[in-house]
Amino acid sequence: MGGIYLSDVLLDVFKHQRVLLLTDLKLIFLGTSASVPTIHRGLSSVAVLRDGELFLFDAGEGVQRSFPKAKIGFNRKMSIFISHLHGDHCVGLLGLLQTMSMVQRDKPLTVYGPRGLIGFIRNNIRSLKFGLTFPLEVKIVREGLVVETRDYFIKACIGQHRMKNFVYSLEEKDRPGVFNPKAAKNLKVPEGILWSKLQKGESVEINGKIINPNLVLGPSRKGRKIVISGDTRPTPTIKRFISGADLAVLESTYFDDHQEKAKENLHMTAREAAQMASEADVNQLALTHFSSRYDDIAPLLSQAQDIHPNLIVAEDFLVLNIQYPDEKV
Amino acid sequence: MGGIYLSDVLLDVFKHQRVLLLTDLKLIFLGTSASVPTIHRGLSSVAVLRDGELFLFDAGEGVQRSFPKAKIGFNRKMSIFISHLHGDHCVGLLGLLQTMSMVQRDKPLTVYGPRGLIGFIRNNIRSLKFGLTFPLEVKIVREGLVVETRDYFIKACIGQHRMKNFVYSLEEKDRPGVFNPKAAKNLKVPEGILWSKLQKGESVEINGKIINPNLVLGPSRKGRKIVISGDTRPTPTIKRFISGADLAVLESTYFDDHQEKAKENLHMTAREAAQMASEADVNQLALTHFSSRYDDIAPLLSQAQDIHPNLIVAEDFLVLNIQYPDEKV
Repeated sequence: MGGIYLSDVLLDVFKHQRVLLLTDLKLIFLGTSASVPTIHRGLSSVAVLRDGELFLFDAGEGVQRSFPKAKIGFNRKMSIFISHLHGDHCVGLLGLLQTMSMVQRDKPLTVYGPRGLIGFIRNNIRSLKFGLTFPLEVKIVREGLVVETRDYFIKACIGQHRMKNFVYSLEEKDRPGVFNPKAAKNLKVPEGILWSKLQKGESVEINGKIINPNLVLGPSRKGRKIVISGDTRPTPTIKRFISGADLAVLESTYFDDHQEKAKENLHMTAREAAQMASEADVNQLALTHFSSRYDDIAPLLSQAQDIHPNLIVAEDFLVLNIQYPDEKV
Repeated sequence: MGGIYLSDVLLDVFKHQRVLLLTDLKLIFLGTSASVPTIHRGLSSVAVLRDGELFLFDAGEGVQRSFPKAKIGFNRKMSIFISHLHGDHCVGLLGLLQTMSMVQRDKPLTVYGPRGLIGFIRNNIRSLKFGLTFPLEVKIVREGLVVETRDYFIKACIGQHRMKNFVYSLEEKDRPGVFNPKAAKNLKVPEGILWSKLQKGESVEINGKIINPNLVLGPSRKGRKIVISGDTRPTPTIKRFISGADLAVLESTYFDDHQEKAKENLHMTAREAAQMASEADVNQLALTHFSSRYDDIAPLLSQAQDIHPNLIVAEDFLVLNIQYPDEKV
């Protein structure tokens, strides 16, 4: 039989992936209004999808209804990060947990957030008398490292708001450098499992000789970093925390016309968010969490665009694909 | 100056209203899905508007977002009636109370519902740390009379569900009969304030003689009655409670294909709701609270329509105007 065997094709794809070590990373805005929802903007929630895993940042009222609209299932591997306990950022948890049980979710779920989150969930489970079909763990967040896996960190930094608010980051660990097949051949490493190990940054042994992966790999490649602010004033701590992010999703409750209100209510204006992102060398800035008083954001955007030109205005269900800094695929 | 004076026009309108004593009564469905919202159906809530006053029956998650869509303001005279404390019927209260405060509501608000409602609201006000700009009273409902004013009653009847559930009715008091101007003239009652009193069913005095309004009025005319079920199995008590209603809004979580589930989960099928409404001489039946498993209700409707032909399928934002039984305007 002639033609290409399926296994050959798969192997080719696999080789390509091994060399580039690419992982999908995308962000979907599920709600982009501050405090009060509007007809077009729901309350705060951002879904981040990485390699099939979902990270939900905040869960404003109505978020469960955004899941099917955004084609996100209720029984996937996921964790939830709550910035703070104002209702517009967390009330949607209640319906989300109940609906997950209605559809018989069985995967465990961890919800991270400030002290007070445990009481909020426990009291409501009692009042509303609902059971859960899956193991639920609620973890109280402290500033610093929140989660570490083989591939990424989730970190938190305290903002400045009326109650404790966490700014979160998802930071991928560095990937090994680009694999140099010529160098591997020169070192007499046979193609196959040993190449794969070297590509992943592991040492291998050939005839009693240890081959260090550095001999066949280029310089290690940076992972991606995204940050999501919750509600906060700009602060030097946050500026350091978001430094060099590929994408920063920052609250921008107000524009220049309400600079005083921003200070008073401990929020940011679009200009302040852009200023901080620019000084922190953030690559792309997405503004969200707009006061419902602004019907049309577009005419106000120049206030921020002049300061940080790589700027996006969040809309409900807008999807952003986050590329690697070195990605040219 | 010629033409019609405004005061004359107003007087004419006023006279006409006095004779018919008509009051607008309309119902707007704000959410019509059971347990889990769908893309087209939100969670349970029904707004009833009567003479500028709003009665909100249940407040499922997302109801605050339905207010502007239904063009209902947050600072109007209103009261809220919660059928039971399952999340899909009451979680929307939290955002609604917060948004009322954001827009500086100042009118007092009473929320009626089962025991447990006070703890639910109090715990969440503590967890979410929100203040209210208006006086809020939470009243625990018992079966029977809940509210009585000059014009109407709100009554409650206990259903049969997993937790205590109230079926509510809004029943207008009877209006005086049709005024007979000829009879009034024969009795030498001068037109004006005395006619108005007689039309309202009050006695008047002419030259020391008491004129009983019965002498100039036809038989008293029935007010309207609407009932809203919350979640329940059909029961003989409810059948009596909804008897003769001009409109019954009944839950119809399931259709014939899930008769067993309806019994098990203490809900009704469309057929059961229609059967009960028919036996209770309900004029118009509106089915609502459909399980999210039913994408399209239309093909299933004959199951209920054969039993109660004056049937409406609730859709989010559907408006029903409820006419008087004798209204022919």
